[in-house]
Amino acid sequence: MNITLTKNSRISNVDFSNLQFGQIFSDHMFVCDYFDGEWSNERILPYSDIKVSPSSRVFHYGQAIFEGMKAYKDDKDVIWLFRPDENFKRFNISSKRLAIPEITEKIFFNGLNELLKIDRDWIKKGVGNSLYVRPFVFASEPSINATEANAYKFMIICTPAKSYYENQEIWVKIEEKFSRAAKGGVGYAKASGNYAAQFYPTQIAKNEGFQQIIWTDSNNHNRVEEAGTMNLFFKINDTLITSPTSDSILDGITRKSIIELAKKVNIDVEERVITVNEILESSKTGELKEIFGTGTAVVVLPIKAFGYQNNDYKLPDLDNSWSLMLKKKLMD
Amino acid sequence: MNITLTKNSRISNVDFSNLQFGQIFSDHMFVCDYFDGEWSNERILPYSDIKVSPSSRVFHYGQAIFEGMKAYKDDKDVIWLFRPDENFKRFNISSKRLAIPEITEKIFFNGLNELLKIDRDWIKKGVGNSLYVRPFVFASEPSINATEANAYKFMIICTPAKSYYENQEIWVKIEEKFSRAAKGGVGYAKASGNYAAQFYPTQIAKNEGFQQIIWTDSNNHNRVEEAGTMNLFFKINDTLITSPTSDSILDGITRKSIIELAKKVNIDVEERVITVNEILESSKTGELKEIFGTGTAVVVLPIKAFGYQNNDYKLPDLDNSWSLMLKKKLMD
Repeated sequence: MNITLTKNSRISNVDFSNLQFGQIFSDHMFVCDYFDGEWSNERILPYSDIKVSPSSRVFHYGQAIFEGMKAYKDDKDVIWLFRPDENFKRFNISSKRLAIPEITEKIFFNGLNELLKIDRDWIKKGVGNSLYVRPFVFASEPSINATEANAYKFMIICTPAKSYYENQEIWVKIEEKFSRAAKGGVGYAKASGNYAAQFYPTQIAKNEGFQQIIWTDSNNHNRVEEAGTMNLFFKINDTLITSPTSDSILDGITRKSIIELAKKVNIDVEERVITVNEILESSKTGELKEIFGTGTAVVVLPIKAFGYQNNDYKLPDLDNSWSLMLKKKLMD
Repeated sequence: MNITLTKNSRISNVDFSNLQFGQIFSDHMFVCDYFDGEWSNERILPYSDIKVSPSSRVFHYGQAIFEGMKAYKDDKDVIWLFRPDENFKRFNISSKRLAIPEITEKIFFNGLNELLKIDRDWIKKGVGNSLYVRPFVFASEPSINATEANAYKFMIICTPAKSYYENQEIWVKIEEKFSRAAKGGVGYAKASGNYAAQFYPTQIAKNEGFQQIIWTDSNNHNRVEEAGTMNLFFKINDTLITSPTSDSILDGITRKSIIELAKKVNIDVEERVITVNEILESSKTGELKEIFGTGTAVVVLPIKAFGYQNNDYKLPDLDNSWSLMLKKKLMD
């Protein structure tokens, strides 16, 4: 691997106690090119702008996917990642659906490990501190023919993060007009286009006083799917319910861990379809105790209230919430 | 507008009689930036690579849309475009759905007209010759926060084209597993992510011997939608049928013109839901006479046969097809 180190580290200019998510990037980046049927030219460079053709297919046809994971540093200065093998697997699942050539495990992990070694000072110790790692791949072939590209760039960039939405509780809107994903579509992939499609409906929800949307199926808007950057969990009486993953729901890595952890502490977990009606009814009877989201960026994020058809439904205040208990277990 | 002309025109190296779509670009490009709430810095530059941040949102969240139109040159060397006002309108309709700030009519047409004036030698006279014009906008803000960006680039690039699929007839597959768009989604917009999502299902169809897919609704795969880069028309007996546009079907400009032209020559046109069952039945009875697609790139493209559930259905050979008649009228 070709490594070029920066001569001007930016780390001393960064206020690590006051970080906005995704604005500041570590000193280096990993780059690898796909050309003539293979991945090659693995290199680490100072983080900087890249030169691409304006006809690169990513600009026109959105052929791009990504992953997100967090690197932590423990008290003994050891760097560790949370289940990176799962991210690697999902990276290639997403790639396949978008007709992007899969990356090898060797390139993915060599790039990742070397980059984290070089930028290790960007990973701060202490609860809530992490370096958010963003592997992504995009179609770079300079041609606007509307088919899959023959050239791609795989890159890893890193941004230091404080716990996203720390100590926050959010209001969410159950969507009944717009949709995130179709059956048979790309909802299960971390496809770039899935995200842009949510911005406008989310703008509308934000103007109505909500922070995020609970997406429902595109056909009847009755089956609960996910929250766009989070999977969702519902505590009804003493059962924890989450929608099964499908071709329209992302197979979240944090989701999987929360299910395992909950089962370990003998919580009754059901992976099954949950409908808007069930949520409304159980909220009215008081059986709905908690809703929370899970994802790499947020880890576990409690939901304070939800809106549906111009009515707001508040969740009860709890002393011993499962969301906080499970988050603590996960972070430990 | 700031104009920088190239010192090294590439036009003499181009074989205009032998063009692959979307591979070669004219000498110049138009660029305009969105920043601090407004579009500014309109400029024409030699066509070349651009510098962007690897954290530009377009790479991660697919916030990008485009248009396609064709510039022609008539026998008197006059350059003209086919209904560019419709493309401009749709450009902003797409932008709005993707939470991208709309562009002004003045910037769009100043850029377009100035660019075509400078690159006028790239527009060749004669039937089937055109300069395909690609306006597009993408999120350039260097931040991976998953919300709409605050900075964008609007660009226009041009690629010389011979009639796409000239004298071709294609085989299409009626899709019954994958979906292009959800109700409530972004199918009606020329959103970049809509295209990448089609590449993998289209790869599969190509391996089965088809060139394109007829998309059906994501719920039951029974209502016919569009072909991804074309709207579809069906001639059953003496009626021309096309699906009504919706939030999952692009409001095609060529589609609109074909409907108008057909009505002018007293063809009975129906804009209504057409189902896969109806197509299969009318094919079996011989009442299905023609299927053709319409779009900027293809103009009008006849379909020779379609496949459904491992059966192939051939369309009859016609001496006087509506598709060729309407294409001729449109080109005139």
